[in-house]
Amino acid sequence: MCDSCGCHVPDQEKSTMTVDVNTSLLEANTRQAAENRRHFDAMGALVINLISSPGSGKTTLLEHTIEKLGQEMRIGVIEGDIETERDAARIRAKGAAAVQITTGGACHLDARLVHKGLHDLRQESDSDRFDIIFIENVGNLVCPATFDLGEHERMVLVSVPEGSDKPAKYPKAFTSSQHFLITKTDLLPHFDFSLAEARREALKLNPDLAILEFSATTGEGFDAWISYLRQRRIP
Amino acid sequence: MCDSCGCHVPDQEKSTMTVDVNTSLLEANTRQAAENRRHFDAMGALVINLISSPGSGKTTLLEHTIEKLGQEMRIGVIEGDIETERDAARIRAKGAAAVQITTGGACHLDARLVHKGLHDLRQESDSDRFDIIFIENVGNLVCPATFDLGEHERMVLVSVPEGSDKPAKYPKAFTSSQHFLITKTDLLPHFDFSLAEARREALKLNPDLAILEFSATTGEGFDAWISYLRQRRIP
Repeated sequence: MCDSCGCHVPDQEKSTMTVDVNTSLLEANTRQAAENRRHFDAMGALVINLISSPGSGKTTLLEHTIEKLGQEMRIGVIEGDIETERDAARIRAKGAAAVQITTGGACHLDARLVHKGLHDLRQESDSDRFDIIFIENVGNLVCPATFDLGEHERMVLVSVPEGSDKPAKYPKAFTSSQHFLITKTDLLPHFDFSLAEARREALKLNPDLAILEFSATTGEGFDAWISYLRQRRIP
Repeated sequence: MCDSCGCHVPDQEKSTMTVDVNTSLLEANTRQAAENRRHFDAMGALVINLISSPGSGKTTLLEHTIEKLGQEMRIGVIEGDIETERDAARIRAKGAAAVQITTGGACHLDARLVHKGLHDLRQESDSDRFDIIFIENVGNLVCPATFDLGEHERMVLVSVPEGSDKPAKYPKAFTSSQHFLITKTDLLPHFDFSLAEARREALKLNPDLAILEFSATTGEGFDAWISYLRQRRIP
């Protein structure tokens, strides 16, 4: 499990037993993720898993998305955080259904937690009908990349203040995602962030990545984003 | 191990065996950390473990510190990253000794990796004599908080773009640190970051935290920082 999420197991302590436990836990997660995906498909919901460091703008992206699409689509959000209910409160304030999963120390969501979150979301909204469900993972660019949650699409966010070297330094989030969202682009003049480097390094890791640039301040990128979500919505 | 680093072990899969493995791995880390601390003490080196999300400014803080103190103190840096040698190259360019540990997927340093890093640092610099050794942990605000590396002081960094809600959302890094460094304060006018909230939430978690504010752009905070390091230097 620790190897699977990227946590280091000291060599001398590695044993067949540890590896067996790790493998078994990761296999259990994969089975649960497949079950989640069947649930999501049965509901007709497109499910998107958002992965990034703390403060990259996941919640802000969701707030703007709900403002723009909340009238025409039913949007639900499963929020993952180590502590606090703040992000779910921000989402509910925009009028979407949201449940908060606090992992109590765990550095990522797993498929079982999301399964519980889905049931809570149905209960909170008194409905089975969602067009899109966003899963906002725990703020962490490392561990969440290893865990399939049953999502249809995975998106990794990096904000301009974090630096354009992040794809090369945290590769798994990029090799396992379909989209790379570069956020806070209005700050490009103030930071030594190279869009060319970020794009080049990300595409070197994963040539199929779709790359979008966003600014919640100027509105850059939101038209393309909203069009994309409309087009991907399951009819 | 997964519980110990904060990774979630699904409840159904938890077993005495898993718990035993976890406990044994964390105990092994604690033993190795105590050995590291004896090494550091014997060398007369003050050792500081820096923990933050990716892009909070750990490497930049070290670059400025070496510029200001490199002539009067012997500084060594153990760099932890998942991939790439970039940070060690940045430190060496400032004239300090640096070794890079690439964890190959692991989301934090552990005491064994740091022990190896210390040997590499001695070999690279052909010396046992360091006044300060900085350990720059893997960019991750979660998992590194659980692992004692044998350091004398632990410091957690949050940059203004990340948001002032981070102490409440990622408490363990704050309860286990002695210092909280707020970086990129020149950006305060451009972000909805409340210094009062960040300080209040951090001190609620850990009333003994010393809080410093930094800007590598304006130089804010560096005089106090350099004075602190001079005073803490082991005579």
